[in-house]
Amino acid sequence: MIRFYNAKIMTMADGCGITAGELWTDGDRISYIGDTPAELPAFEREIDVCGNLLMPSFKNAHTHSAMTFLRSFAEDVPLQTWLFEKVFPYEDRLTPEDVYAFDRLAILEYLASGTTAAFDMYFYPESSAAAFTEAGMRLVFCGSINGTAKDVERLNSQFQQFRNLHPLVKYRLGFHAEYTSDESLHREVARLAQAEHEPVYTHISETKREHDECIERHGASPAQYLESLGLWEYGGGGFHCVWFDEADRAVYKRNGLWFVSCPASNAKLASGIAPLKEAYEEGVQLALGTDGPASNNALDPFREMYLGAVLQKLRHNDAAALPAAEMLKAATVGGARAMGLHDCDILAEGRQADLIMIDLTAANLQPPHHIPESLVLSGDRANVKLTMCAGKILYENGEYHIGVSPAEILADTAKRIARLTD
Amino acid sequence: MIRFYNAKIMTMADGCGITAGELWTDGDRISYIGDTPAELPAFEREIDVCGNLLMPSFKNAHTHSAMTFLRSFAEDVPLQTWLFEKVFPYEDRLTPEDVYAFDRLAILEYLASGTTAAFDMYFYPESSAAAFTEAGMRLVFCGSINGTAKDVERLNSQFQQFRNLHPLVKYRLGFHAEYTSDESLHREVARLAQAEHEPVYTHISETKREHDECIERHGASPAQYLESLGLWEYGGGGFHCVWFDEADRAVYKRNGLWFVSCPASNAKLASGIAPLKEAYEEGVQLALGTDGPASNNALDPFREMYLGAVLQKLRHNDAAALPAAEMLKAATVGGARAMGLHDCDILAEGRQADLIMIDLTAANLQPPHHIPESLVLSGDRANVKLTMCAGKILYENGEYHIGVSPAEILADTAKRIARLTD
Repeated sequence: MIRFYNAKIMTMADGCGITAGELWTDGDRISYIGDTPAELPAFEREIDVCGNLLMPSFKNAHTHSAMTFLRSFAEDVPLQTWLFEKVFPYEDRLTPEDVYAFDRLAILEYLASGTTAAFDMYFYPESSAAAFTEAGMRLVFCGSINGTAKDVERLNSQFQQFRNLHPLVKYRLGFHAEYTSDESLHREVARLAQAEHEPVYTHISETKREHDECIERHGASPAQYLESLGLWEYGGGGFHCVWFDEADRAVYKRNGLWFVSCPASNAKLASGIAPLKEAYEEGVQLALGTDGPASNNALDPFREMYLGAVLQKLRHNDAAALPAAEMLKAATVGGARAMGLHDCDILAEGRQADLIMIDLTAANLQPPHHIPESLVLSGDRANVKLTMCAGKILYENGEYHIGVSPAEILADTAKRIARLTD
Repeated sequence: MIRFYNAKIMTMADGCGITAGELWTDGDRISYIGDTPAELPAFEREIDVCGNLLMPSFKNAHTHSAMTFLRSFAEDVPLQTWLFEKVFPYEDRLTPEDVYAFDRLAILEYLASGTTAAFDMYFYPESSAAAFTEAGMRLVFCGSINGTAKDVERLNSQFQQFRNLHPLVKYRLGFHAEYTSDESLHREVARLAQAEHEPVYTHISETKREHDECIERHGASPAQYLESLGLWEYGGGGFHCVWFDEADRAVYKRNGLWFVSCPASNAKLASGIAPLKEAYEEGVQLALGTDGPASNNALDPFREMYLGAVLQKLRHNDAAALPAAEMLKAATVGGARAMGLHDCDILAEGRQADLIMIDLTAANLQPPHHIPESLVLSGDRANVKLTMCAGKILYENGEYHIGVSPAEILADTAKRIARLTD
């Protein structure tokens, strides 16, 4: 059992209210939140939080973690050049061992920024499962098949293999995107989801071109077309949603789908600014993701929260657009629920102990007029003092406790990057 | 003398090339950059840079440092409400001692993010001069008078008082904005600048409304109107420049003026996205500022560089718009020159030793394919290991060496904020 005392606690069970008190963990779960009782049990460790903040950890609801190897490989080039000349040819060279190594590099960044779960789409899920579970971090793998109906067999076999592999690993049905697969695949994924009572996820309406071409092909936008096939009878969501109009958002609202926004990636690749304000006001569920580090270029929930908030102000020419605190919810509670981590969402007795400690004495968070808003508009990953996942402290005051040193990870990845980008 | 050895060095004397070597300081200046010579003099300290990066420090070319006290005081409200209900009434209560205290709070944030000079516009310059010089950081104070010709006397008297006050302090002629003063003031400032052979600075074309109203009043945009009065015969620049058209940028180009962009403030207050790409391509000189922390809400050059780069991609719907490295130049060399700190711009023998050390082993900067671009698109203030100003190490590995502890500053400001916002 670990005791955090003398804390400010933002449980996020119902908004962003903050109370003073203490929080205990027992194994991988939170066992107590409240005032200091008259009698205390024995703890393996007692941590004086010194009036700092405990809050739910961040959940990265869309990423391609292993793309760390291509970060800053090609900058300031058009999207098509980047993808076809600077990404795909190099991804073709990846081995499973490379993906394991590059995931570990991403994990260093996730933990230092308070992120304890990644909703990851990439090659070699077994490599990612190894990297994440060894470090003690959660991986929710999202299927990313493309092609035709026959490819759904591979999705199903991965799903069966990974769905109950490890307490820290989950697998969600998914496919790459409407525009990289045909209707037979979409229908077969819908059938599988209905048979398994599972949600489905996909990249959706990231660029205007793919959005418009779907309308030409199917007479309906991606969201409306996929809904018509019965894809989302058990929920799910979409990544990006930049070009969603009111009807698309209505599809999301009525199916309880997750609108996973990736504002940094959409900015860097000039895809556009997603309609987060409208989606929020219409009651669509929001989460945030970084997308891959080559198109961001950080794996930092603070960047996404900040951009999620301020880009809406630019989009709507209105400094009052979208309450900043909504981005804090999207990056934590929203992200957890979007990827199906329903016991990792808030701080509550019985929930998984996935939490972070924020240094409220940091200069950039002064004065503490409005802490949730400050975290979104002023905060950054330097404010994260401690990251706990499933009751284990994986990062504390700049030090990692993940069974391998950053130096080892860097030396390993440097060799691989030299080979891959030769 | 201090010796930095085993370093990567980006002098920024001519682009963003990086060489290996060492750098020495002697007093407040850089005394040597090059290979390790056969014989070494005696040093008071020798620092193994461990292959990390030395580069020029950041210069914040537009700020209102003491506005730290209003950070996160009112969020998600329209600009006019914010200014008239949540800023001005509280600023009226400020004492000189308050400004000193709130400047010290800002200095903590500046130094931790690698910033060694602030181009500051606010009340009570004597308070700011005390706060900055005691900490060892540079202050370039910018006049911010408004009103009519008679107010220029105050500008001149401040100018005479502060221009040679201290090696770390400079004073530049300036006024608040075209729309908060009348033509008699503008003409009198122009006369003073011509008499003193001095550059002039002002807020300019920040919002569409002020830009358009100037055209109504004077039949010309702020840049064109002020040029016609002879304001910029000895150079200067403008803060924001959001609504600059081609003719405005031509005014800046032909007068060698500095286009000081504040992308975070312009986003949060929904002012717009400044035409940085066009200005860059036309050869206008660029610098970056944070604006005040209440309208940003950080004092972080990494945020400004990042936004400066990616917002252009959104504005132009082009992932290739504006090379990211240009923002690194604007935040360092550009900023120094914009505020007239010509001996603090690059790393070179004889220049002021205003420099930072960047941790190139940080996970978010891997792999080191393109370091300048990585600093802009992936970097953050957690990558700053050391900040030196005028040859003194003011910040190193999370510790400040400024003659006062962060805890003392926080305790002092907390009391004042409680009184001011009561």
